Amino acid sequence: MLTNVEHIGIAVRDITVSNDLFAKLLNVQPYKAEIVASEGVTTSFFKINPGQENQTKIELLEATNPDSPIAKFLEKKGEGIHHIAFAVDDILAEMERLRAEGFTVLNDVPKRGADNKLVCFLHPKGTNGVLIELCQEIKE
Amino acid sequence: MLTNVEHIGIAVRDITVSNDLFAKLLNVQPYKAEIVASEGVTTSFFKINPGQENQTKIELLEATNPDSPIAKFLEKKGEGIHHIAFAVDDILAEMERLRAEGFTVLNDVPKRGADNKLVCFLHPKGTNGVLIELCQEIKE
Repeated sequence: MLTNVEHIGIAVRDITVSNDLFAKLLNVQPYKAEIVASEGVTTSFFKINPGQENQTKIELLEATNPDSPIAKFLEKKGEGIHHIAFAVDDILAEMERLRAEGFTVLNDVPKRGADNKLVCFLHPKGTNGVLIELCQEIKE
Repeated sequence: MLTNVEHIGIAVRDITVSNDLFAKLLNVQPYKAEIVASEGVTTSFFKINPGQENQTKIELLEATNPDSPIAKFLEKKGEGIHHIAFAVDDILAEMERLRAEGFTVLNDVPKRGADNKLVCFLHPKGTNGVLIELCQEIKE
């Protein structure tokens, strides 16, 4: 089951510059920065309202190498919104449900993403051009 | 003050087709459809988790005429994420704060948007290519 919009991912060229910009826009500092080597990204996260549960976060993404998906996105489309991530309570069940509905799941098994999550993506060709991420918190 | 991500707007060519697609994706039917004549759009709204407060909704937008901003967006970029809307408790104060921070507010005074809101937009050139909407619920 999808439970909420977990975050919105925004591709940026220079995360230091954009951290300042979004801190001004959102009137709050990022609460976390993280490098996800497997995805070739440096990320930072903002919570608009730190006291509110299940709120949607803003994730900034800068490419760490020219072959990363974010570098390719920036080259093709420029800076802007990259993906919407939905939190799910059971990622395997949700991948199965969406495959049965005709959506194309981009990775056959969930992979480890930023912010202690198992993630998978849906092909944007099947979702009106919107790159969709499903994410489930890893409980260890 | 920004209080939460109110909704994410997605530009689509055919809202009837996309309502079906997003109903499958989100596993929930749209709860509202609305024509905003002043903006030249037909909209529909989805709540992923109808019981959760302050959750981020998904808004689909189809153009009702070829001169509407959504028609121009579709022509230039195709279907996809169009804007992020942040709920604010005082839209005039927030417009003032953001102007002072150097952001460009696209309308000088708030205008009436979908879903019983006063809205204004920030120019995406100043926000890493992201079209930002501020919205405040109208209390009558």
